[in-house]
Amino acid sequence: MKTKKSLSIKDIAAITGYSTATVSRVINNRGGYSEATKKAVTETIQQSGYTTGAVSSNLVGILVPDLSNEWFAQVCVALEKLLFEYGYSAFICNANEDSRRESFYFQEFVNCKVAALICFVGSKELGDLAIHASFPVVFIDRFPIDTEQLLCLESDNYLGGYMATELLIRKGCKHIMLLDWERPLSVNLARQQGYFDALKDHGIAVDKNLIAELSDQSDHYEGAKNLVFYMINKKLNFDGVFATNDLRAYGALQALQQNGIKVPEQVKIIGFDDSSVSQRCYPALTTVRQDCNYMAKKAVEVLLDRMDGRTTATSEHIILPVSIVERGTT
Amino acid sequence: MKTKKSLSIKDIAAITGYSTATVSRVINNRGGYSEATKKAVTETIQQSGYTTGAVSSNLVGILVPDLSNEWFAQVCVALEKLLFEYGYSAFICNANEDSRRESFYFQEFVNCKVAALICFVGSKELGDLAIHASFPVVFIDRFPIDTEQLLCLESDNYLGGYMATELLIRKGCKHIMLLDWERPLSVNLARQQGYFDALKDHGIAVDKNLIAELSDQSDHYEGAKNLVFYMINKKLNFDGVFATNDLRAYGALQALQQNGIKVPEQVKIIGFDDSSVSQRCYPALTTVRQDCNYMAKKAVEVLLDRMDGRTTATSEHIILPVSIVERGTT
Repeated sequence: MKTKKSLSIKDIAAITGYSTATVSRVINNRGGYSEATKKAVTETIQQSGYTTGAVSSNLVGILVPDLSNEWFAQVCVALEKLLFEYGYSAFICNANEDSRRESFYFQEFVNCKVAALICFVGSKELGDLAIHASFPVVFIDRFPIDTEQLLCLESDNYLGGYMATELLIRKGCKHIMLLDWERPLSVNLARQQGYFDALKDHGIAVDKNLIAELSDQSDHYEGAKNLVFYMINKKLNFDGVFATNDLRAYGALQALQQNGIKVPEQVKIIGFDDSSVSQRCYPALTTVRQDCNYMAKKAVEVLLDRMDGRTTATSEHIILPVSIVERGTT
Repeated sequence: MKTKKSLSIKDIAAITGYSTATVSRVINNRGGYSEATKKAVTETIQQSGYTTGAVSSNLVGILVPDLSNEWFAQVCVALEKLLFEYGYSAFICNANEDSRRESFYFQEFVNCKVAALICFVGSKELGDLAIHASFPVVFIDRFPIDTEQLLCLESDNYLGGYMATELLIRKGCKHIMLLDWERPLSVNLARQQGYFDALKDHGIAVDKNLIAELSDQSDHYEGAKNLVFYMINKKLNFDGVFATNDLRAYGALQALQQNGIKVPEQVKIIGFDDSSVSQRCYPALTTVRQDCNYMAKKAVEVLLDRMDGRTTATSEHIILPVSIVERGTT
């Protein structure tokens, strides 16, 4: 007896001429199609001699480093909404900023026969796994350094860092602290480079004392608050802070305020992300906005193009625009 | 040829005498066991004539209503850490506050052959599905109204509501607004009841004008801010606000501050959860603390007891203590 081969949603889509999204909706009784469509899809499945139980898979995996970071949580929520509309289910795994877990959960997604995977984490190992995966993988935000053979989607982190630094310079800052994270993530490296290039283009020398990096295991908010507290007590001279995410910017704001230093009068701050904390704190944070919903939309488009067979390209690097949102801290 | 029956981790645990957590760790090469243990488990699997590929399942599903609400995200992060330590993988689905998705994702977890399920959502339908599930299901926080046959775990929401209201009364408030959500969730109903009983026990009549409920689809923060803004402009007389979660409390704080009303001098506020916003806003929020990590620990214990066969009880209602954290808003 031959081993049964399972029929994929893609196979059924190819036979019937409908999109994989439509086929998935029919299989899962999700509505949003005509009776004729339902009949065509169901008959194809029945005639092929396979049961619907053998059909795989409407699952899309999402691998995220830290759900307690609101920005990741918000992109996940946006992704789920879109995927559900298209007839897919989103399964989210939290890798807890741990590279061992990243590879482990990747394998779990393989075992679950996901139709596609969205990764917000990007070790070299994960890049290798993605290249050899039998399903499309798109990296969002963070990705392996060598991305030539991968699908990657990110905000314009370099230009964001450049624009943020330039805004502080335009507002009169001459001693700008970079409040960053020691982990060498692609996103952070790009934002840093933007900072360095903006200083250079404006003839400001880099002051190494003002490059403040949180250690790998720090909490973004508490770590930044403590570090800026320390920098203040060290009597370092700074009049601006570019924090490479909003949680760190908010930590800096609180450290300054608790030391009686006025923001924005004495020190100006700009963050990155435009997460809710930046809108809600006082004064509200000036920040570099990444558009969660647009990012989620593009990621789902990239995957659907592959799942529906509109392209087989496995390498693409998409950069989404960012914008400055000026609020009370600059 | 007979259909192959898959051997469960529980079966292997029963044969070898090791816990399911240990068996799962061996199967997934996660370490933390002796060579002897590894040998015993591997041999049992081999001798049974099944391949390890047929072994199911080290997946634990987590069904959550809204990951962009930090409190849920934090409990998920805590759950994942514990489950991973015990050799299980956590798959999270975000139901997006949509009862249709709750049942849908429940079925997806069944299809994935999860070993157990943790639900932060609780429609009647989901209760029925849980009763008939072949794996243990524990409801956390929110659960179906009729819980007699279910495993439920919650903070002491009633007493939290009572203590919060009583604190405001002790601080001199006589006109206390209840800032709630119209959705009739078990948690909200209990917190409300605590509010009513505390007023009654202190001889304060309920003022219906001060029962403010956000509509079902509102954003907790924006909705609360707008509603309190409206209440202020309506010239309602209130000197205290009990908000049934921190996001709503924070919305109230901002609405009051933007109208030049001093907190805590003119109006006192208490929230519920002790999420990061309550610690980080200014003035920091007084709130009722739910202990995320303890809740996650108890939930995992309840599930492991069942997965490891230490109990078969399918009905239990565990209530965890809450505490008042006094900060700047009271």
